[in-house]
Amino acid sequence: MKLYETKTAPNPRRVRMFLAEKGLLDKVECVEVDIQKGENLQPEFVAKNPMKKVPVLELDDGTCIAETMAICRYFEEAYPDSPKLLGESATEQAFIEQWLRWLDYYYFVPCGMGFQHTSGYFKDRMTPNPTWGESCVKDTQKFMEFLNQHLADKDYICCNKLTAADLTAFAVTAFARVIQLRVDDSLPHLNKWYQQLKERPSAQV
Amino acid sequence: MKLYETKTAPNPRRVRMFLAEKGLLDKVECVEVDIQKGENLQPEFVAKNPMKKVPVLELDDGTCIAETMAICRYFEEAYPDSPKLLGESATEQAFIEQWLRWLDYYYFVPCGMGFQHTSGYFKDRMTPNPTWGESCVKDTQKFMEFLNQHLADKDYICCNKLTAADLTAFAVTAFARVIQLRVDDSLPHLNKWYQQLKERPSAQV
Repeated sequence: MKLYETKTAPNPRRVRMFLAEKGLLDKVECVEVDIQKGENLQPEFVAKNPMKKVPVLELDDGTCIAETMAICRYFEEAYPDSPKLLGESATEQAFIEQWLRWLDYYYFVPCGMGFQHTSGYFKDRMTPNPTWGESCVKDTQKFMEFLNQHLADKDYICCNKLTAADLTAFAVTAFARVIQLRVDDSLPHLNKWYQQLKERPSAQV
Repeated sequence: MKLYETKTAPNPRRVRMFLAEKGLLDKVECVEVDIQKGENLQPEFVAKNPMKKVPVLELDDGTCIAETMAICRYFEEAYPDSPKLLGESATEQAFIEQWLRWLDYYYFVPCGMGFQHTSGYFKDRMTPNPTWGESCVKDTQKFMEFLNQHLADKDYICCNKLTAADLTAFAVTAFARVIQLRVDDSLPHLNKWYQQLKERPSAQV
């Protein structure tokens, strides 16, 4: 299988961490896509993912699966003996999905839009709206504070164990440096959780 | 179980349609939350969902699950004999997740933001950015055209059968009237699919 990805981008990182925690990283051949140069806008890539985003998983028969959580779901179901990161019981699976959605809508999306609209990083392909970008940066910071409170009495985001929610929260927290948000002692619970995650081998892949 | 929801809002509609297609609508007692009046901002509701959004599922033991897809996942796993709407095989589950994500990020989110930022519907609790709103309305329309092309040779969004992706796409397409986007003969494939979905009993709940 081929994983089309961009080493420095947060979504591919979520997939690599997910695979590493499952012991499945050797199942994929990583293919680097230079999104800054716009390789993802070329017809060959658009045929794999009409939304023009990394990561994309290409199965051996040529079938392409886009979207981080869809790729994670594929590995969760195709390798049932690997550690479950999307939960076991109905309630656990629902809680993890709730957190994945909260993290995407209220942390990752504002962080990404804050970056794109304040930096103009992709201004060759979109019109930045700096006022909107600044409002997104503020929302990202607010969610960081919410996460910090949430983690005051917990080692993991939910279910008392490592789940895909921790991997997403970690990848976004690390990425937030692009909008000048860094975890430090002003957010002590988030920082403690972040440093613990950072020590895991999956954070190095 | 109680389902805290708002009858006219698109996310609760997705959950009701999901439950209706599974034959599980009678498992929940629907409790109306008036989001225009801000009932979702009151402490009692925020204790159920700190993100202040409908729908929320409250289990009989008081456990609360927020987020549409988390609630759907709960019912998919807790009632394994009901019709599967999130897929069977790993590949099927991955495709449905891919489409659910595409529909959320490139259709539902732009539609919702387009509405909120051009109408000022929630201006008591957020600052509308009309320029951003207009750009979101355009993105919604673009995705509608993409969906129309995609459905040119299909009866369903993916997997050759009804899935949660169709229910999401239907609820958003119906909701898009709030930004003056209506499906008609100018998008014939989307319109044909939409009219078929509209005939299902689940579209009436």
